[in-house]
Amino acid sequence: MQRIQAYYRIESDAADVERKAQAIAVEQSVEMPLAPIDDAYVLENVIASVGEIVALNHGQFKARIDYGVDTVGDDVGQLFNVLFGNCSMLPGVEILDVELPPALLARLRGPRHGINGIRKLLGVERRAITATALKPQGSTTDKLLQLCQAMAEGGIDIIKDDHGIVDQYPHCRFAERVPALQRCVREVSARTGHKVIYAPNLSGDLLNMLKQLELCRDEGVEMVMAPPMLMGPANFNALVEQCDVPILAHPTFAGARRIAPELLFGKLLRLVGADGIIFTNYGGRFSYSLAQCTALAAASRAPWGNIAPAMPVPAGGMTVERVPELLATYGADTMLLIGGSLLEAGPRLRDRTQSFVDSVAACSAGG
Amino acid sequence: MQRIQAYYRIESDAADVERKAQAIAVEQSVEMPLAPIDDAYVLENVIASVGEIVALNHGQFKARIDYGVDTVGDDVGQLFNVLFGNCSMLPGVEILDVELPPALLARLRGPRHGINGIRKLLGVERRAITATALKPQGSTTDKLLQLCQAMAEGGIDIIKDDHGIVDQYPHCRFAERVPALQRCVREVSARTGHKVIYAPNLSGDLLNMLKQLELCRDEGVEMVMAPPMLMGPANFNALVEQCDVPILAHPTFAGARRIAPELLFGKLLRLVGADGIIFTNYGGRFSYSLAQCTALAAASRAPWGNIAPAMPVPAGGMTVERVPELLATYGADTMLLIGGSLLEAGPRLRDRTQSFVDSVAACSAGG
Repeated sequence: MQRIQAYYRIESDAADVERKAQAIAVEQSVEMPLAPIDDAYVLENVIASVGEIVALNHGQFKARIDYGVDTVGDDVGQLFNVLFGNCSMLPGVEILDVELPPALLARLRGPRHGINGIRKLLGVERRAITATALKPQGSTTDKLLQLCQAMAEGGIDIIKDDHGIVDQYPHCRFAERVPALQRCVREVSARTGHKVIYAPNLSGDLLNMLKQLELCRDEGVEMVMAPPMLMGPANFNALVEQCDVPILAHPTFAGARRIAPELLFGKLLRLVGADGIIFTNYGGRFSYSLAQCTALAAASRAPWGNIAPAMPVPAGGMTVERVPELLATYGADTMLLIGGSLLEAGPRLRDRTQSFVDSVAACSAGG
Repeated sequence: MQRIQAYYRIESDAADVERKAQAIAVEQSVEMPLAPIDDAYVLENVIASVGEIVALNHGQFKARIDYGVDTVGDDVGQLFNVLFGNCSMLPGVEILDVELPPALLARLRGPRHGINGIRKLLGVERRAITATALKPQGSTTDKLLQLCQAMAEGGIDIIKDDHGIVDQYPHCRFAERVPALQRCVREVSARTGHKVIYAPNLSGDLLNMLKQLELCRDEGVEMVMAPPMLMGPANFNALVEQCDVPILAHPTFAGARRIAPELLFGKLLRLVGADGIIFTNYGGRFSYSLAQCTALAAASRAPWGNIAPAMPVPAGGMTVERVPELLATYGADTMLLIGGSLLEAGPRLRDRTQSFVDSVAACSAGG
């Protein structure tokens, strides 16, 4: 029988940890007292079981819980439901990691393009990928267009919308913004010979996102961005199914839950089909440590059955000056996303963008 | 100018808190350095501002941040994005509460049925509502049918699917289960004269849920359940738009360590249209306190512009013996949801259900 193996950090004293792990196993599988269950199928395939429990530091334990693969079926939402549904509300419990049987990996599929697809699209074989964001929300389409042009001429690879730019402003409608910005990157790419891609931010409910995706397809947009934790992983996965270009996962709203970042960004978002995974970089304004960031980047690229590697995209408070350090940390199979720090250059936006691009090229050549 | 007022708990020393609050205001609005921003519209309507900051205990502060209402538009997902998108990943930050201007409330609408709609549907004017869950997942449709019949004959008001029952088992397909269970509650209601409602659990991505909703409509199902935090609030809201019966919000994946439960369950889920809001009760196996539970129940029923009151639905490790205490705590505008503790009765399921029903009736008569 195939089992899903999930690992949880449990705060407990030694005497109680077995009972607490058992409570999670019951909560996340049958969620009822075991005594009245007499169905042989349920007893064998549905009730989760507790595996190895190892002590960590300071009243913390790591417990493995094994779930029947049938409990998930081929429903990505149900995978999250089984792994961390109700137990997300238990005190002192965090999910650390998961191992999935090959049959489930084959059904869920993961990134459709991944690192290789993004490299091929850009025609960039070895160096790290450069990316930036259009900001601030509330700007007119014309203003974003000016920024886009300067950054494209600076030689960047990917220009994405800020995730706060949805379809809320009459002066910056998705239906006008996306064709205008796509024309801009196409024109600059043709003129300079350097391929620049624009990645619009999809928003609203899934039905609206699918309509936006249709417009992107009509305009020849070659990459899109969407927020898996805000829209729900099953809906992100449904979007991936309909999307024929690489998709970037934005981390907004991800921090509201007790899921280890290495697991969430390194494995689960890859599993639901993100080709590039934006996460908040160490040493910036967010809370992930260097160790967490390198672990999640490694996880996003590690061999994993049939699941293609996803491109790690560190972001958040990064500067051009940090490029050598960041590339030493993450290596070349990385997309560096620098937004605000480029925009700070104001009228020198094109030059600052070019410094970013040159720095990545120089570091990659030296590596 | 109308502003959205959001309140955050910030861990800080006194010297730093103003700077940290300002960082959240920037992060959640323009997410870039302010210096290069020269657009008058953005300066006036988009950049968030810091309001009052008050000291709480032990290096904790409560800060108000005011957001321009234009930044949200009429997009429910964007509301969550603005309130707790990136700052969900900042260390030591929790969102506590929000006040929304009337124009935004009018656009978002909230519950379509709410407490009054649920009471009318059941024909129950004053007493508390009784509810239970079909479990465990993995059972055949026939087994669930037997449980449903016993609980319906015991006189319960609402029988919902366990949230772990999706469409993963060939022996318990949604398309077979829902018509069979709906026929059961209709038959028992007709025979006994006591109205019983079956609420199926919708699952998968939004497109699949909308298909399931269609089937429910065809079968005359009078209530459904869906998980807003697993499917994303914008997608839950889209489901509400298409749903002509009351909808219960299941708390799975809510894991709201850094969203105050009073805000998440008491206000935000009501805002996106949940008619009944299931939450994990105090004194059970989850982590919410009595004070949090009573505060969230009060919030779900409090007057709030044009937003109808939603029915609070405490659940999780509750027993029939606790009914008097629970009703003394929550009052009659409450749906008590007892699942596992009824199912523990095995062959005496019908009688245990009837004890639950009788206890609610007795307490309500005495009240």
